[in-house]
Amino acid sequence: MAEEAFGAPLRDCRRLAIHSRTLQPLDLRACVALCAAKGIAGVSLWRDVVHAAGVARAAELVREAGLAVPELVRGGFFVHDSAAARAAALDENRRCLDEARALGTDLLCLVPGTAPGVPLARAREQVRDAVERLVPYADAAGVRLGLEPLHPMYAADKSCINRLRDANDLCEAIGAACVGVIVDVYHVWWDPELEGEIARTGAAGRLFGFHLCDWRVETRDLLLDRELMGRGCIPLRAIRTMVERAGFGGWHEVEIFSRDYWAMDQGEFVDAIKAAYLGCC
Amino acid sequence: MAEEAFGAPLRDCRRLAIHSRTLQPLDLRACVALCAAKGIAGVSLWRDVVHAAGVARAAELVREAGLAVPELVRGGFFVHDSAAARAAALDENRRCLDEARALGTDLLCLVPGTAPGVPLARAREQVRDAVERLVPYADAAGVRLGLEPLHPMYAADKSCINRLRDANDLCEAIGAACVGVIVDVYHVWWDPELEGEIARTGAAGRLFGFHLCDWRVETRDLLLDRELMGRGCIPLRAIRTMVERAGFGGWHEVEIFSRDYWAMDQGEFVDAIKAAYLGCC
Repeated sequence: MAEEAFGAPLRDCRRLAIHSRTLQPLDLRACVALCAAKGIAGVSLWRDVVHAAGVARAAELVREAGLAVPELVRGGFFVHDSAAARAAALDENRRCLDEARALGTDLLCLVPGTAPGVPLARAREQVRDAVERLVPYADAAGVRLGLEPLHPMYAADKSCINRLRDANDLCEAIGAACVGVIVDVYHVWWDPELEGEIARTGAAGRLFGFHLCDWRVETRDLLLDRELMGRGCIPLRAIRTMVERAGFGGWHEVEIFSRDYWAMDQGEFVDAIKAAYLGCC
Repeated sequence: MAEEAFGAPLRDCRRLAIHSRTLQPLDLRACVALCAAKGIAGVSLWRDVVHAAGVARAAELVREAGLAVPELVRGGFFVHDSAAARAAALDENRRCLDEARALGTDLLCLVPGTAPGVPLARAREQVRDAVERLVPYADAAGVRLGLEPLHPMYAADKSCINRLRDANDLCEAIGAACVGVIVDVYHVWWDPELEGEIARTGAAGRLFGFHLCDWRVETRDLLLDRELMGRGCIPLRAIRTMVERAGFGGWHEVEIFSRDYWAMDQGEFVDAIKAAYLGCC
């Protein structure tokens, strides 16, 4: 699909969700209250705010506010030099699955991990091994595992899975129904194989999640300079059309890490997110 | 090849070259004098120092110092919204070829370019079209065109060609003997297809250049935080072995952009480059 072959504009915010990290200045109570007040129907929870509130209280807060929880963010980080550290990571991921279940979400976002001392090829084997070991626990918890390929600029310190193709290959190799992929436009927009790989993910029934933000031109920080949709260079509507053609009907989760936006009034920021979502996605 | 299947260590600095931009604090006269004094046999010239000295004087300086010029850096930047800007870029690249010839180098490094307003698929067509148009002029000048795929983190503002596979595809599509590829470890080290694509480049006789530096963990700046070899996470010896197995016998060009190293005494920096090169590449 040519990038300009857009689908129809969005007409409402029914599928719009926001990550708690997107509103980092807020604690969970304030985040939930703001989302509810602004008519945001879903909030994906990061573990920091969940732990600060306590898991049971966090579950209560979102339930009382009538919010859905598209996913818990984030497990993974499976790659380590030592077997002991890898085993500890698996334990931590089992705790993530318990928390996801307690929070009423059926999806855990996995950042695969990497380690400078571990060659990338071996790191990728470690990720496969870890996810395979996690499958029975995930099945028992009724929580799916969503592998998120991260941009190649994170290959040194966050993820050895850097393309959608590699995430798809990994899912195929594992071959478990509970293992799929989360597509974040920020990580994959540059990929010449994007359309075909999104179709492949969808055809296999593995497109579990979809994250939105934009790529700032020029980006001043590798981590905390994501843009609001429409203010960067990612062809958002084209990519949304690709995921819809691949059969995705789930949440559109806004995940923005930005010192600039975190310095704003967060209510105004949510208003800006809604306007950007309807106008540009 | 597993990343740990290293080749033999380097025994001397005969093939070591340094980019003038690596020693940014120095003007061309000082850069050339320092390289000659330190026994560096080649210096790849960036256009800024060449223009500051004047092309004829620059050619004289490197010739008098007995230095080789592996390549002129850099042409390209072919992608623009308007046809007029694209034509101007082609003219600029013809001037680059004239300068390369005058400087006594047979290789021009091309940064493909990209533009936020141009969809990536169209940008890639513009690059192909521009390189095709440049071929006759390059042939007449006796200068080869080395396309450098840039890391995906530059897809928004520097290059729409972000993987070695795509550079190889482009070269194949163009099919001219003077069009090949420059492999910079910084841009490609993360790529799961790296070994196969390097072999493909070499088998086609298109591996024109090889750039060295390292990826800092963690990287603090998208442009100016490259590391000295061995101080980051790139499997340098493994990648050097790949390019040698692909038949490459040319220069090993050190290209480091770094506020930290530019703040050092540049003589000490060159000593550190030599030690790092022999110890880690």
